[in-house]
Amino acid sequence: MAMACALNSINKKSTLLMLTAPVKTIGRIPASWGRHAWSIGREDPRRAVHALKAGTALTLVSLLYILEPFFKGIGKNAMWAVMTVVVVLEFTAGATICKGLNRGLGTVLASSLALLIELVASGTGKVFRAFIVGASVFIIGFAATYVRFFPTIKKSYDYGVLIFLLTFNLITVSSYRQNDVLPLTRDRLSTIAIGCAICLFMSLLVLPNWSGEDLHNSTVNKFEGLATSIEGGYPLLLVHIKACNNYQNSPKNSDKRKLTACVNEYFRDQDKDDNDKQEARASIQIGYRAVLDSKSSDETLAHYASWEPRHSMHCYSYPWQKYVKLGSVLRHFAYTVAALHGCLESEIQTPPSVRLLFRDPCTRVAREVVKVLQELAVSIRRHRRCAPDVLSDHLHEALQDLNSAIISQPRLFLGSKRACAANKHMLMELNSGNHTASRTTLHSFKTDATALSERKNTGTEQPQEHNERGMLRPTLSKIAITSLEFSQALPFAAFASLLVEMVVRLEMVIEEVKNLERAANFREFPGHDHLVIDLSSKEMTRNSNATALNPVSAAAE
Amino acid sequence: MAMACALNSINKKSTLLMLTAPVKTIGRIPASWGRHAWSIGREDPRRAVHALKAGTALTLVSLLYILEPFFKGIGKNAMWAVMTVVVVLEFTAGATICKGLNRGLGTVLASSLALLIELVASGTGKVFRAFIVGASVFIIGFAATYVRFFPTIKKSYDYGVLIFLLTFNLITVSSYRQNDVLPLTRDRLSTIAIGCAICLFMSLLVLPNWSGEDLHNSTVNKFEGLATSIEGGYPLLLVHIKACNNYQNSPKNSDKRKLTACVNEYFRDQDKDDNDKQEARASIQIGYRAVLDSKSSDETLAHYASWEPRHSMHCYSYPWQKYVKLGSVLRHFAYTVAALHGCLESEIQTPPSVRLLFRDPCTRVAREVVKVLQELAVSIRRHRRCAPDVLSDHLHEALQDLNSAIISQPRLFLGSKRACAANKHMLMELNSGNHTASRTTLHSFKTDATALSERKNTGTEQPQEHNERGMLRPTLSKIAITSLEFSQALPFAAFASLLVEMVVRLEMVIEEVKNLERAANFREFPGHDHLVIDLSSKEMTRNSNATALNPVSAAAE
Repeated sequence: MAMACALNSINKKSTLLMLTAPVKTIGRIPASWGRHAWSIGREDPRRAVHALKAGTALTLVSLLYILEPFFKGIGKNAMWAVMTVVVVLEFTAGATICKGLNRGLGTVLASSLALLIELVASGTGKVFRAFIVGASVFIIGFAATYVRFFPTIKKSYDYGVLIFLLTFNLITVSSYRQNDVLPLTRDRLSTIAIGCAICLFMSLLVLPNWSGEDLHNSTVNKFEGLATSIEGGYPLLLVHIKACNNYQNSPKNSDKRKLTACVNEYFRDQDKDDNDKQEARASIQIGYRAVLDSKSSDETLAHYASWEPRHSMHCYSYPWQKYVKLGSVLRHFAYTVAALHGCLESEIQTPPSVRLLFRDPCTRVAREVVKVLQELAVSIRRHRRCAPDVLSDHLHEALQDLNSAIISQPRLFLGSKRACAANKHMLMELNSGNHTASRTTLHSFKTDATALSERKNTGTEQPQEHNERGMLRPTLSKIAITSLEFSQALPFAAFASLLVEMVVRLEMVIEEVKNLERAANFREFPGHDHLVIDLSSKEMTRNSNATALNPVSAAAE
Repeated sequence: MAMACALNSINKKSTLLMLTAPVKTIGRIPASWGRHAWSIGREDPRRAVHALKAGTALTLVSLLYILEPFFKGIGKNAMWAVMTVVVVLEFTAGATICKGLNRGLGTVLASSLALLIELVASGTGKVFRAFIVGASVFIIGFAATYVRFFPTIKKSYDYGVLIFLLTFNLITVSSYRQNDVLPLTRDRLSTIAIGCAICLFMSLLVLPNWSGEDLHNSTVNKFEGLATSIEGGYPLLLVHIKACNNYQNSPKNSDKRKLTACVNEYFRDQDKDDNDKQEARASIQIGYRAVLDSKSSDETLAHYASWEPRHSMHCYSYPWQKYVKLGSVLRHFAYTVAALHGCLESEIQTPPSVRLLFRDPCTRVAREVVKVLQELAVSIRRHRRCAPDVLSDHLHEALQDLNSAIISQPRLFLGSKRACAANKHMLMELNSGNHTASRTTLHSFKTDATALSERKNTGTEQPQEHNERGMLRPTLSKIAITSLEFSQALPFAAFASLLVEMVVRLEMVIEEVKNLERAANFREFPGHDHLVIDLSSKEMTRNSNATALNPVSAAAE
């Protein structure tokens, strides 16, 4: 009895637990949502500000309906103003202007066309009128939908065509049962105008967000991201080199523990190493991936920025398309960075001993490229021209060092293992044409080929393991590729060649940045030595016409 | 007088001409627009069909307002149904369903919330009511706008939140002057339901366009585009090699004319050659650029495809996200193709004589990769699994040939000119540590550095030419890089290494294709020998549960 009681109480407790657990879980949901919402606002506080602006605009426009004097003037159609605010108010000023103008233009054009058709149909019989309404709805519906596939329309006026179709249908269909659609048309035009005016006021005059500024900042961030990617690349390189550095400097027995730890880190703790690698890789990827994936966002921002009045007030339109062009050249540059990253994480790796030989010249070239990228980022951020000698002689010197380093190590390309063991013998062999090397390779490849065919045979016997084997296949085949002899030297050659290619593309980037600077009338470079000051002061007089138009650059001087 | 008359007539004629010319120009505009519209329809005839569908849907929905019995039932609010059709009907079925459901869900939720607030506010004074309406509009406006920044909401429910806000404001604000908003709410729900129903009928049952099909086809096109890019790459390579082939095979005096023609084509006619190159380059770029820029369109299509019912009817959801994943792996592959293309158009080129040595193995590897890509394209297009041995031994053999070719030419990496002239001498020098080579390089670089500094000095004297010089700079600097010795061998090493890297990444692509095939339950590979048939028949029994659910694959067997 006592036991039954105890069991009962336990049951009750567990039931209570089972009931409270989901309640607690449900209770935790709003908290996690709150944290999520908070993190989104902290990421970009302008979001919260924009939401507050939207709430205020909606309340303001609702007053048109609530306050008696406004309601008497506008009437029930004040609702269209509310709808306009909901639909038109966007995050940036450019987007709001673009949508507002599209909505206005679409409404005006549709109203005119609808009134014209109404004029034609007026005074006719009911059946004929129905036919005209139906036919015009079909034809305009077809034409407007088709026009939205035109690339130019789709890019700039898609929303305008939508509103054109909406307003046209509204007025034309209403005209069937309403004798005079003129008041309806007038109401629609005026309410939409009021709605757009409130939106423009809110987005242009109250803490505005500019698409142009976003585009400018994202361009600067791209340069910095690429610099981080390249900079982040060589810590990864250094980790490898350090490991082999220790390996080379401490082959003594006393250092065996240290050596083992190193080898452990480099060879044994592959899982851990892989995790570390994965993290480093992820941090490298962020920089160049952002550049590679920036095409559509760049184009959208440039499109909205072209509607913004801030710069057009100075009698010349700001060259937003140059930013898009610069973005495309930067993507071209980033392909090399991606390929360079591919070399770092490639399955076929040059032995650390080989990499160690080129550590200094390679990192020097990379560091110089990073310096140039950072200088470009700073100059764009500050709206000033970059130094005329941004592509410094240091970079050329670094390239030359790399050159010398490669030329001084030709034996590398004969296969490092054998080169270390029997360098002279090899060279003689090569001259006499006896390529034992290739024979060795053939053998090593055949071993792998045998392994592959063995795998296939087992596959026939145990087909139920096909799936697992299918997954294993690439790994096996990677081993096959890795065992090929040319893998020893080629990856490093590719790495060095990509570094050189990167410098070439960096020049294209600099050229495009200079185009942007000229077109956007950036301030002159302040200069740090006599030569540069002399140059820029002379150019100032040459550019006097341009700077006179641009108070920003004039003020800066 | 006669002269004045003549002048007058001439003046009249010119005025007439001046008047008729713009008329003719204006007359030509509709014709050019017509041609443009025709070309857009011919590019994808589904566009014209969709426009016809939209026209029909709009006419149908207008009947609700025009026909007496419908009008009596629904009334003036039938206009909302018209608006719904204008806004919701999209090109593909998935997009229409997504928008329709969003609009429906948003309306239902907003109506419920608005009625709840109406219930709270009912029976209160006018001022308090105005306060409640204003406050709720502000709070809901703020919250809804803020929620649209959440990535999950932005991706799938952005339009739903917009409609929620629209409907909520409509009902709440109306409730201030209307005693009973229930009929209004009911009308809005029913008209939106009617509009959505017409849209769904039109887009699901009348000649539907499926996002899923578009995604599937675009994936196949990506494979084909990459194959064309790689295939297109080696004609360009061959043009170079052919030029040097002629150069090498005909060094006799009798063939001087031919040689000159070749050298002309290769070195002198740089402008013409550049144009040809530009065209070839453009055709290569189309293939891989389409892959590189496909991210956002892939994600949109997959998102819409996930709403489409076609595949979900078979009790399992089609793995559209696997297509997105495959797209990402293909982009990873395409980076290598882009880098390979970068090698082809690089300013630093390996001499044709060097390239000639590796022509056959390189083109063989490329051809094998193209074959694999084409096989994958065909298998995905036909919804069947690819051959288990799609990564054929031919490819491995081609890689091995390339390996042997590189190993058999180690002197390449010592600088081809000197290697030809004084190979033995060089090797001895290298062993003794006398690096004349690097000294020569130093000298050649210094020449360029001098040129650069000279250029700078002239720049100080004639700053008015600064702009032109700025443009010239990269060219000069490219020459400086080209003159570095390591440029001779490295670019080819990079080319070969990238080819190998491409094969490694091709394996990742194959792995991802196999994942897709498994997840999407593609038909078994028909097989061409005993081994494969055996394998697939065994797997058929293993997969019997899955195939039973999928009539397509069952029917195919």
